[in-house]
Amino acid sequence: MATKQLASWAVNLDAASLPESVRQCALRSLYNYIGCTIGGSNHATVSKACDALSPFFGRETSSLLGHEGTKKVDAQHAALINGIASHVHDYDDTHLATIIHPTGPVASALLAYAEYSGGTSGESLLCALTAGIEASCKIGLAVWPEHYDIGWHITSSTGNVGAAVAVGKLMQLSEDQMAHAIGIAAVQVVGLREMFGSDTKSFHPGRAAQSGLLAALLAEKGYTSSPQALEAKRGWANVVAGGGTPKLEQYVSELSQKWEIEANAFKPFPCGIVCHPAIDGCIQLHHEMKSKGLRVQDVQKVDATVHPLVIELTSKRAPKDGLEGKFSVFHGGAVGLLYGKAGPAQYADEVVTDEGVVSIRDRIDATPDKNLKPDEVYLTVHFADGTELKRHVLHAVGSLEVPMTDEQLTEKFVDQVALVLGSDGAKEASDTAWKIAEARDVTGVLGRL
Amino acid sequence: MATKQLASWAVNLDAASLPESVRQCALRSLYNYIGCTIGGSNHATVSKACDALSPFFGRETSSLLGHEGTKKVDAQHAALINGIASHVHDYDDTHLATIIHPTGPVASALLAYAEYSGGTSGESLLCALTAGIEASCKIGLAVWPEHYDIGWHITSSTGNVGAAVAVGKLMQLSEDQMAHAIGIAAVQVVGLREMFGSDTKSFHPGRAAQSGLLAALLAEKGYTSSPQALEAKRGWANVVAGGGTPKLEQYVSELSQKWEIEANAFKPFPCGIVCHPAIDGCIQLHHEMKSKGLRVQDVQKVDATVHPLVIELTSKRAPKDGLEGKFSVFHGGAVGLLYGKAGPAQYADEVVTDEGVVSIRDRIDATPDKNLKPDEVYLTVHFADGTELKRHVLHAVGSLEVPMTDEQLTEKFVDQVALVLGSDGAKEASDTAWKIAEARDVTGVLGRL
Repeated sequence: MATKQLASWAVNLDAASLPESVRQCALRSLYNYIGCTIGGSNHATVSKACDALSPFFGRETSSLLGHEGTKKVDAQHAALINGIASHVHDYDDTHLATIIHPTGPVASALLAYAEYSGGTSGESLLCALTAGIEASCKIGLAVWPEHYDIGWHITSSTGNVGAAVAVGKLMQLSEDQMAHAIGIAAVQVVGLREMFGSDTKSFHPGRAAQSGLLAALLAEKGYTSSPQALEAKRGWANVVAGGGTPKLEQYVSELSQKWEIEANAFKPFPCGIVCHPAIDGCIQLHHEMKSKGLRVQDVQKVDATVHPLVIELTSKRAPKDGLEGKFSVFHGGAVGLLYGKAGPAQYADEVVTDEGVVSIRDRIDATPDKNLKPDEVYLTVHFADGTELKRHVLHAVGSLEVPMTDEQLTEKFVDQVALVLGSDGAKEASDTAWKIAEARDVTGVLGRL
Repeated sequence: MATKQLASWAVNLDAASLPESVRQCALRSLYNYIGCTIGGSNHATVSKACDALSPFFGRETSSLLGHEGTKKVDAQHAALINGIASHVHDYDDTHLATIIHPTGPVASALLAYAEYSGGTSGESLLCALTAGIEASCKIGLAVWPEHYDIGWHITSSTGNVGAAVAVGKLMQLSEDQMAHAIGIAAVQVVGLREMFGSDTKSFHPGRAAQSGLLAALLAEKGYTSSPQALEAKRGWANVVAGGGTPKLEQYVSELSQKWEIEANAFKPFPCGIVCHPAIDGCIQLHHEMKSKGLRVQDVQKVDATVHPLVIELTSKRAPKDGLEGKFSVFHGGAVGLLYGKAGPAQYADEVVTDEGVVSIRDRIDATPDKNLKPDEVYLTVHFADGTELKRHVLHAVGSLEVPMTDEQLTEKFVDQVALVLGSDGAKEASDTAWKIAEARDVTGVLGRL
């Protein structure tokens, strides 16, 4: 039942009837995706892919977000390359219950197809995006955690289906065609965790996007798969999760009752999530010091009490470059205190090795306490004159309890996009991206990003 | 070790040092592939794929074998579409120990790339094909039978790696690049057995071909994966076979010692392998009757003693069309007796329902005997005048014990290709295909197929 039920639900999902909260989540997910994708567009991993694939580019219909020069390529390559860019900085969204980064595969396929086909409204786009994200996350929940534990990269191994559902929705496939599209997508299982740390990690969501798009294109022309693709004995869920799919039917039956997109979170800082509470607290302290006229240079010592995972994963005392900086809670805290920011610019190699930053970093200490929750921190800042500032962060910004505000999302967008398009270009792109929902036809909008 | 060892072996495989028997097997595999691919090229499944994908075709470098009209497309789409065509009649080769159909994914990628890059000799092509087939079959043996039992279509889920190795070999990748290509291919695991019976079954080897080609293209430009992609805890073998890869190292260490391509078999008849012994025996009886001046119309009864699987899988007494005919040992036997042939033409709808064929079909009986081997049959033909002819087939033609001769392969090629290119075109294509190994540059040769 699950395959047909998912297909039927997606085909019948009505843009005008989407709850406003869901629509907002879809817009925020899309906006964040656009920022991450432009932000990743000049990464070496993306450049290598473009270099390898440019001889195969077809008709130029679909934008490579953020790119100068070869701006448009065929829709299949746009899906692949934007998908790579969306994930390459590990800065994309997270459905926390499954650690799926859902928007990358879905939106990469969807935007590429929207531009190819022309005439899609912003509202249709958000509805299709929602359908795709719900599809990915529901089937992800069904196989979580076995599937991830086995070694699959769950973002891409569910994103293929999400991408097919989203594109199929925009195509207005029939229920039968949509079921076949889901099946054709489901046989293309991409992504192994062994690849984490290599270029291939971000290839995963890109290829998932492209696979889902391909599935929908084939189904549209009558290509058949199986109407039990997800739930059959030798179908997707059993094969990728080592057997047993009772949860699949359950989760699919909850479509439209519980919206997974409402549980989609955004990363405020481009580093491991465990050090986010400390960075958040340090940024708050930066603002408090500023308002009180205290100088960070006068700080003598900072004591942080953190969840033990913070020490285990991010305790690099003397990071040597940007990449190592991402594994140093001390660097994250230092730039938070100094600049009130821990964006991509603060993880540049030259910032990580900057004398002023190093000097503050060396004054920070962290003590593990297993009674804390992972997104909690206690901070005390000691000044030479005996002044003390204290801060307790119960939930870090970017958690479901304290989601990033639209303003914070905008800051994140502009900070990362400015590194590619410059400051003015970034602000312009941000304005354009926020307005995408209002577009009668998104084609023109995407061409400007 | 397995990934690096496979990469190193492939990079260093020397065309001039291939054993002659291996070279012959490679040529026969390639020849059979070309026949099957042209034979499948006008199938509805292929037409649907072309219909869906033609808007995305890029630079026209690589031939769609057998196609009129849009003859050349970009290499990535050529790999996909030829791969679909190669498998669509279930008439391709079989590595019996793993039931992998190895040549489809490997050759589809390889020929597409050879034409794209230009200047490849026939001998280099055979060497690269051999490397790819050995790669697919060795890693297939490592995960057999768990992997297939779980529900993966092992042809495509190993063919991705084989295709990458073959293309990488032609590209002359370094050992490091080849290891990365294997890794990028290995994350793209395509093919679920649930799809058997639908268009998506033959999509599997096509997508595997395309995925392997893509992997090699990326690796050539420095795209990285993992040098332990196949054997790591969360690498390919453990993930797709439910853990445990001691066999992987073992099989990879046997490269060049035991050649899997020598155990690659060819199907003489386009139907389930279990009824091949009965068809083989009936064809032998056709020739015996002819030489003795006996008429098949005078046959009163045919008694076949067969392995029980024949009854279980192919006992359709009154097939209604070509597809059902493939599941009828009675139809296969009847056309064998009548025409001395059971090629694609004998499985046309109008032949399956032909009165003369039906009349012979109804005179054939089959009795199961579990003491027979699966490729064994006893046949007795009773004539009205009391004459009896007997035939015992110990191993059916197409088995490893009684491989198809080059003449039989040629007949198979011409019979299926004639349905697409006509009789003269088929013979011409056959001559061209047999001579491919001698070509200084295969580009011109492929353009004529």
